[in-house]
Amino acid sequence: MFKRFFFIFVLISAFLSAFAAEIKNAKYVFLFIGDGMSLPQRMAAENYVKSIGEPDLAMNALAEQAITFTRSNDSLITDSAASATAIACGEKTDNHFVGVTPKGERLESVAEAAKKAGKKVGIVTSVTLNHATPAGFYAHNTNRSSEYEIALDLIGSNFDYFGGGGIARHKDEKAKSYKGDIYDLAREKGYEVFVGAKEFEKIPEGCKKTIAVENKGGALPYFIDNQKTTRLADFTKKGIELLDNPKGFFMMVEGGKIDWMCHANDAATTIMEILELDSAIKVALDFAKKHPLQTLIVVTGDHETGGLTLGFAGTGYKLYPERLKNQTCSLDSFKSRVKDGVKKGKIAEFDDARELLENSFGLKFTDDKNDPMRLKSAERDELKKAFDRLKENPDSSDFANCALRIFNNKCGIAWTSNAHTALPVATSASGANAQMFRGMIDNTQISKNLKKVVGKQK
Amino acid sequence: MFKRFFFIFVLISAFLSAFAAEIKNAKYVFLFIGDGMSLPQRMAAENYVKSIGEPDLAMNALAEQAITFTRSNDSLITDSAASATAIACGEKTDNHFVGVTPKGERLESVAEAAKKAGKKVGIVTSVTLNHATPAGFYAHNTNRSSEYEIALDLIGSNFDYFGGGGIARHKDEKAKSYKGDIYDLAREKGYEVFVGAKEFEKIPEGCKKTIAVENKGGALPYFIDNQKTTRLADFTKKGIELLDNPKGFFMMVEGGKIDWMCHANDAATTIMEILELDSAIKVALDFAKKHPLQTLIVVTGDHETGGLTLGFAGTGYKLYPERLKNQTCSLDSFKSRVKDGVKKGKIAEFDDARELLENSFGLKFTDDKNDPMRLKSAERDELKKAFDRLKENPDSSDFANCALRIFNNKCGIAWTSNAHTALPVATSASGANAQMFRGMIDNTQISKNLKKVVGKQK
Repeated sequence: MFKRFFFIFVLISAFLSAFAAEIKNAKYVFLFIGDGMSLPQRMAAENYVKSIGEPDLAMNALAEQAITFTRSNDSLITDSAASATAIACGEKTDNHFVGVTPKGERLESVAEAAKKAGKKVGIVTSVTLNHATPAGFYAHNTNRSSEYEIALDLIGSNFDYFGGGGIARHKDEKAKSYKGDIYDLAREKGYEVFVGAKEFEKIPEGCKKTIAVENKGGALPYFIDNQKTTRLADFTKKGIELLDNPKGFFMMVEGGKIDWMCHANDAATTIMEILELDSAIKVALDFAKKHPLQTLIVVTGDHETGGLTLGFAGTGYKLYPERLKNQTCSLDSFKSRVKDGVKKGKIAEFDDARELLENSFGLKFTDDKNDPMRLKSAERDELKKAFDRLKENPDSSDFANCALRIFNNKCGIAWTSNAHTALPVATSASGANAQMFRGMIDNTQISKNLKKVVGKQK
Repeated sequence: MFKRFFFIFVLISAFLSAFAAEIKNAKYVFLFIGDGMSLPQRMAAENYVKSIGEPDLAMNALAEQAITFTRSNDSLITDSAASATAIACGEKTDNHFVGVTPKGERLESVAEAAKKAGKKVGIVTSVTLNHATPAGFYAHNTNRSSEYEIALDLIGSNFDYFGGGGIARHKDEKAKSYKGDIYDLAREKGYEVFVGAKEFEKIPEGCKKTIAVENKGGALPYFIDNQKTTRLADFTKKGIELLDNPKGFFMMVEGGKIDWMCHANDAATTIMEILELDSAIKVALDFAKKHPLQTLIVVTGDHETGGLTLGFAGTGYKLYPERLKNQTCSLDSFKSRVKDGVKKGKIAEFDDARELLENSFGLKFTDDKNDPMRLKSAERDELKKAFDRLKENPDSSDFANCALRIFNNKCGIAWTSNAHTALPVATSASGANAQMFRGMIDNTQISKNLKKVVGKQK
C-alpha cells in the first residue's frame, strides 16, 4: 500500500511540476535595457555584424522573446521616465514621472523588492546614474529633470553598487533641496566612491557600498569614439564580483547612449552602442554558465527612437550594412571636428571639408561611378548649401546632419523622427523562469515577472 | 505487481507527455499571411482601433508570438516570391523565385504536403490567385511574373478550393505555354468556377473542386473604397464549409493588398486591409472554438513594406491614430477622382481641389489654428506646386502623394521607402502546437513547423 501511495504521490508531483506555474526564485537576476532599442536597432546591429563577419549578437540568440508594448499612461509614445517606471515598478505612469504613479504616489521597484528580499542590488549605465532609466529603479519623483533630488534618492536607496557614467548636477547649488555635493553625501551614507579608470582598478574586493564612475558628472564616451575607457562590460563584471553573495543579486545594466544617437539619427554609432551593451550581456551569459539553474537574464528596450528603418526609397530592395563601417566617429565628434576646423580657419571653404567627410563617413568626391560611396552631384550641392550656413554660424548642425543623412541613405538606412516612436520592443530572456517572457506583453509585465522571481520579502 | 507497473507506466507517460516534444497532427490548420505586414503595420492598426473605440485586433491577442526574420537567399530585403517560398516550402530562395530553390529545383510546399497527407487544401487571397504569395503554395517557377504558367500550376495542383481575387492574365495569348483561357482549362480539370458575388452565393454544398473569384482577372477592391463585395472573411468561411472533412484541411489566407498600400505609403488604407484580414482570422477563431484541440491558427507577414514608423519628426512624442479616420478612400481612388476632375475640367485651378482634399483626407483650408487638420501655409504651398505639375500632366501622382504625405504626418505617421524593408515580422499562433512559434525564428521555420503538423504522407 505504501508503495502504491508513493507512486501516486510521485505521479501527482510530476504532473504538478510539469504543468503548474514553474515560477521559482532565481538567485541571480540580470536586467539589460537598451534605451531607444527596438527591433530595427537590434536588427541593424545584427545585419551589421553579419555583413562584416563578426559574431552574431548574444541578445538576439536568447531562447525566449516577447513583443513588448511601451505606451505610457498619458501618451502612445512613452518617454524614458515612464517606461523605466513601467519596467522597474510594473505600473503605467505619465511621461517625465519616475517611480511614482500619475498621482505622485510612490511605487516599489523590482530593485527595491530584491533588496528587501535580502539580495544585493547593482545599477549600471553608460549614461549618468541619475538619468531617467536608472532612476526608475531607485527614485520617486514627478519630474525626471530634478536630477539633484533623484541623486539624493540614489544615495538613499542603500543599493550596493552603482557603476558607469557619473552623477549629473551632483553639485547643483540651485536645487531646492541642496545639501551638498552628492559624492560627499554618498560617503557620509557609507558609500566608497571611485572616479576614473585608475581608481576603478583599485576597488577593493568585498567593498560593500560602491559608486564607481568613469567621470564625476557625465556619461561614458561613445564606443565608436573611445574604446579605451572602462566599458559597460567592465562595470558589469565588477558588479558580479561585488554583489555575489549567498542570497544572490539583482543587477540592472543600461545601454543608455543607444537612444541618444537614435535621437541624432546616427545609425553607425547606435550600432556600436548596441554592441557595447551586447558585450555586457555576454559577461552575464558567461556568469550564467556557472550558475545555469539560478540565473535569469532579461534584455529589453524601453521604446524605439528615431523611426529607424532598414530600407530607404533611394536604395529600393537593397540594404548595405557593411557600408556603415566607413563611419569612424559619432555625429557629436564630427560636429566638434567641423566646428573646430571652421573656428581655427582650417576649414574655410567647402573643399576644405572634403577630407573630413571622407575620413569620418567614407564619402568620396570621386568620378568613379562604381564607387558606392561616391557623392553624386545633387548630394554635393546639398552639402555645399549646408556648409554655407556653417560659414554664417559655426554652431549650425546642418552640415553634419546633411552628411550623416546622405551617409545613412547610402547604407540603405533612413529615419523619420528625432523623437521616440510607438513601435513595440523585443524582450528577450534566458535561464531560470525565462518562459515568463513570451507572446505579446505590456512593459509593466517585465517588472511583475521579475518581482515574482527576485524572491519573497525578508 | 500489475498495479505497480501500471503506475510506473502512467508516471512515464506523464513525464513524456509533459516534457517531450508535444508536436502532434492538427486536423485543421489555418495560415494567415499579411503581405507587407510587420509590427509597425499591426501596431498602427491596433492603435487605430483603440483610438476610435473599436474592438482590439484578434491577431495581436494570439497566445504565442515569434519574431521572424525574412531575408531571402540573395538579399537582406526579401520580395514576396522568396518569402512565400520560405513560408510555404521551408527553404530560402532568390527574390522573384516561387516554389523552387535558387538552382530552380522544385520544392514541396506545406499545402502540397497536406494534400499528400489526405487533407483538403484551400488558398484564399485578396489579390490575384496567381500572385507571388499564394503561388508559393502551389507553383514552381523561377519567375513570379510568369503569371500564366503559375496559373497552369494552380489548376494542376489539384487543391480543393481557391477563393478571392481573380487569375491575372488568365487569357495571356502571348505566354509561351499558352493552351487556352485558364478558366476553361480549370473546368477541364474538374474545377467548378464561380465569378462575382451572385455566383458566390450559389456555390453548392459539397462542391469538390472550387474556384470562386470576385472578378476574373483582378484583385478584390480596397476595403476602404468598397465594403459591399464578397470579402476575405466570406471567402474564408466558404473555405471552411467546402473543406471540412474527416481528415481535416489546410487553408492559407492572404491579405495581399496591405502590401500594395504600404508601397504607396497609404496608412489608413493599409490599416483597413489589416482589419479586413483580421475579420478573416476571427472566422477561423470562431471555428477553432468548436474544435479547440484540433485547430492550429498561425498569422504571419512576409516582410515589412514602406518603412512605416509610428512617429514623425513634426509631431515629436505624439501619435494621432484617430485622425486616420478622416481618410475616406484609398490613394488609388483619390488619384482617379483627381484625374477625372482634371480631365472633365471640374478641377481646373488649385482652389477647385479643396473640396476633394477635405472629403478624402479631412485636410482643411481653415484659419482656425486649433484645428489639427488645418493646412498650414507651407503645406498649402507644397500642394499648390504639386497641383501645378498635375495641370501639365493629368497622370502625375505628385499631387495625390503630396496630400497623402501631409495627411499621414498630421496623424504622426511617416514612411521611408516605397519598397520592402528588412525589419522582422511577428508570427502569431494559437491552438494545437502553437508553442512551436516562440522566440526568434527564421521564416523557413514556419513551413518546417507546419509540415510537422499537417500530418504524415499517405
